Amino acid sequence: MQAYRTLEQRFARISDVEGALGILNWDNDTIMPAGAASQRAGQVATLSVIAHELITAPDMPDMLQDAAAGADADGGLNAWQHANLGEMRRLHAHAAAVPADLVDAASRANSACERAWREARARSDFRGLLPLLSEVLLRQREVAQAKGDALSLAPYDALLDLYDPGNRMALIDPVFADLRAGLPALLGEALEYQAGQPAVLPLDGPFPVERQFALAGRLMRALGFDSERGRLDTSTHPFCGGATDDVRITTRYEAADFAGSLMGVLHETGHALYEQGRPREWLAQPVGRARGMTMHESQSLLIEMQACRSRAFAGFLAPLLREAFGTDGPAWQADNLHRRLTRVSPGCIRVDADEVTYPAHVLVRTRLETALIGGELALADLPEAFNAGIRELLGITVPDDRRGCLQDIHWPAGLWGYFPTYTLGAITAAQLFDAACRAQPDIVPGLARGDFAPLLSWLRMHVHERGSSVGDAVIVASATGAPLSASIYQRHLRRRYLAAA
Amino acid sequence: MQAYRTLEQRFARISDVEGALGILNWDNDTIMPAGAASQRAGQVATLSVIAHELITAPDMPDMLQDAAAGADADGGLNAWQHANLGEMRRLHAHAAAVPADLVDAASRANSACERAWREARARSDFRGLLPLLSEVLLRQREVAQAKGDALSLAPYDALLDLYDPGNRMALIDPVFADLRAGLPALLGEALEYQAGQPAVLPLDGPFPVERQFALAGRLMRALGFDSERGRLDTSTHPFCGGATDDVRITTRYEAADFAGSLMGVLHETGHALYEQGRPREWLAQPVGRARGMTMHESQSLLIEMQACRSRAFAGFLAPLLREAFGTDGPAWQADNLHRRLTRVSPGCIRVDADEVTYPAHVLVRTRLETALIGGELALADLPEAFNAGIRELLGITVPDDRRGCLQDIHWPAGLWGYFPTYTLGAITAAQLFDAACRAQPDIVPGLARGDFAPLLSWLRMHVHERGSSVGDAVIVASATGAPLSASIYQRHLRRRYLAAA
Repeated sequence: MQAYRTLEQRFARISDVEGALGILNWDNDTIMPAGAASQRAGQVATLSVIAHELITAPDMPDMLQDAAAGADADGGLNAWQHANLGEMRRLHAHAAAVPADLVDAASRANSACERAWREARARSDFRGLLPLLSEVLLRQREVAQAKGDALSLAPYDALLDLYDPGNRMALIDPVFADLRAGLPALLGEALEYQAGQPAVLPLDGPFPVERQFALAGRLMRALGFDSERGRLDTSTHPFCGGATDDVRITTRYEAADFAGSLMGVLHETGHALYEQGRPREWLAQPVGRARGMTMHESQSLLIEMQACRSRAFAGFLAPLLREAFGTDGPAWQADNLHRRLTRVSPGCIRVDADEVTYPAHVLVRTRLETALIGGELALADLPEAFNAGIRELLGITVPDDRRGCLQDIHWPAGLWGYFPTYTLGAITAAQLFDAACRAQPDIVPGLARGDFAPLLSWLRMHVHERGSSVGDAVIVASATGAPLSASIYQRHLRRRYLAAA
Repeated sequence: MQAYRTLEQRFARISDVEGALGILNWDNDTIMPAGAASQRAGQVATLSVIAHELITAPDMPDMLQDAAAGADADGGLNAWQHANLGEMRRLHAHAAAVPADLVDAASRANSACERAWREARARSDFRGLLPLLSEVLLRQREVAQAKGDALSLAPYDALLDLYDPGNRMALIDPVFADLRAGLPALLGEALEYQAGQPAVLPLDGPFPVERQFALAGRLMRALGFDSERGRLDTSTHPFCGGATDDVRITTRYEAADFAGSLMGVLHETGHALYEQGRPREWLAQPVGRARGMTMHESQSLLIEMQACRSRAFAGFLAPLLREAFGTDGPAWQADNLHRRLTRVSPGCIRVDADEVTYPAHVLVRTRLETALIGGELALADLPEAFNAGIRELLGITVPDDRRGCLQDIHWPAGLWGYFPTYTLGAITAAQLFDAACRAQPDIVPGLARGDFAPLLSWLRMHVHERGSSVGDAVIVASATGAPLSASIYQRHLRRRYLAAA
């Protein structure tokens, strides 16, 4: 047990450093004065190196081995400790797999490319970014190879495993193929169905920012956000960050449109509820972490898409909006609001996409990044392949690279292997919500009166409090009684967008 | 040079960790949700331990020795590098002098006592706090002994040296004796003079907080605060914190009284100007730090007391106040405002004390804490000795320990050796301001029109940009042409409070 206890202390220390990083990064993106940027980058880099040094300390392999050797002995580890040790080994394997000089080279390549990308995107200049992006890809391929060797995984799987532990492309491919096959037809039918419905009446503003903020706070409380252990603030791009017991979400406000900000808050609140619901006894340990980005996205999408774009919730929201903004009339009734929140409209920009077309953006990017990491696609050919993919799935023409393969930060910033988690999260959200509603018949009636307690209580037990004690697959199977499949998600889309039974 | 270069990298890393701590502590005291307190304490403790481990790393003594050996060789260190190495050695000596178990024991004693003190103060219960405070004192005496042995200093001097590097009680005693001798008479004369002046007309509010905030921002800009590299926020107790290139000051607001908040902002802006004016090339190195707490307090008091409670500044401030609060009439003219800002009124509470009586609070505390560290006073006898000291110097009776020896956080929190820096700072401020005004005749006329540029420019050159390249004594002597003495401070008090020539 001695080795295991020492490991717990080490990882508690790492958790403290990562919590500090969470606050520093939050501060950076919300309230930091501009002139502090360079010094802050130095602080963040130094703390990141310290965290990496802690996990790759020379005595770690021996300690992990000693702990594993004693795990099953008499007086050995209980189930949570066992799972914790497993997570320690996984995190150590990821960190130790990549030599320090490659960590450094990849980090520099990402920083340089991310900086240049903002300019290149504004000018729609893919060719200009190509040298820096090639360097990013080169390093990602080296990282993928190094991690793949160490973890006995295919290169792309080794990248994916960092964001979605345990998931593999062999598991994802059939699910995504299923989605891909059905998507163009579903989209056509949804647009046709929508054309036969009443037109969406415009929701005219302006909507004063302080009223949007107050409304957001009211809804966060209704959802169960614990404001004693978190905050809502403003940033350019909404996110959920902060630290253990201090979960900080952000949104941005537009006076002309409350819906973008509001749905952003609900989405980030879904992430925050997951963070606030992690197992308290294990908060500082790897096993107490949220399971991965797929499960995280499932929680934000379950709240935003499954719960808060439902007709039931629109019935609760409509009078709140009328009260908050002093509005009234047919546009502010629940039916029109619901049509506004479920409007389908194919477009080029992923982050603006509706629920029906969003998977297309992810399918295209996943196919392309696996081919790039696998060496089957030349980076110079990316724009053409990207635009062809969007045309194939959404039937629209990407007018320029700014609205095409340059739109997202992920590739320039070195976040390869991340994209699949968005749509895996959406699929998981649908399957979890369906199971929750079957198990707890008061969930949907609760949404209609703003009572999220039945839903949150189910999520706490079946997802949040499990932390990382088991994998995605076990969480989904034991919560829903079936392995993950796209079918419930597809049924959800047909019900909501085709009014299918 | 190799050893010196490596040391620079180590200390840059320490600077990053300390900057991170500065932001985390600022966040803790301003906007952190209450439920995060325990986790945040863990993060701060972990980063503090990491900083301590970096400075006491096993190879540090050899590296410091190697760097010193090569310092004077051909191609050795220049003057700033030399001074930097000296500061590295001093910081290392302080950190390494105290064994790890004593660091831990002292830290625990301070935390436990500080927590209990808030309750004990509220109940005025010195006896109840005595066991925990005895433990704090015991550990401080052990720390003082350990540092004294390592640094060849008397125990109290070893504590003082942490806050006021290079200063010694042998230097302070005659200065404080001089003040002590003159104080009761000065106070009597000042009260008599004041009685012969027009009564202070009340400045009636309310003063809306947002207008106080806007006015504070306007004055900070006038003083030269760079808001691209800092912020103003709200906290229970005003402070100046944050990090390099990110200097964060705070104040608290009362709707019924703008003066406390405003003078607090001006005081903290004085600290902030020092931090923002440190030598840019050396920001991350020990030699680039502010010199110590005496010099820091000199900068806040120079701005608050010397500059902003002057009659010249009252002439600039009065119309701004009338405009900000929409007020007018005789109370809002510069003369009355100046009388309000220079009113003498002996009281029990140090932080509420005026300029004339403030030193009494420090003299009493300094005499008592030197006696407690020296073992010449029993802690149980502290309340009686404290109250006798206040009566002797201010002629007032302390009604209870809440308003007596329990009022300050310093002793319960283990900040022994800190008190003298307040009054040393006030003396230094007077001497620096006098020299500045003699060297730059446009400083005082500048204050009258809110132009602080001549004053700030002089402070930048003679104090801020020197960082820690020399000691207090050299800064004062080369800036003012004379060693530090109480005489200019005393003359300032006689001029301001007795209208003496």
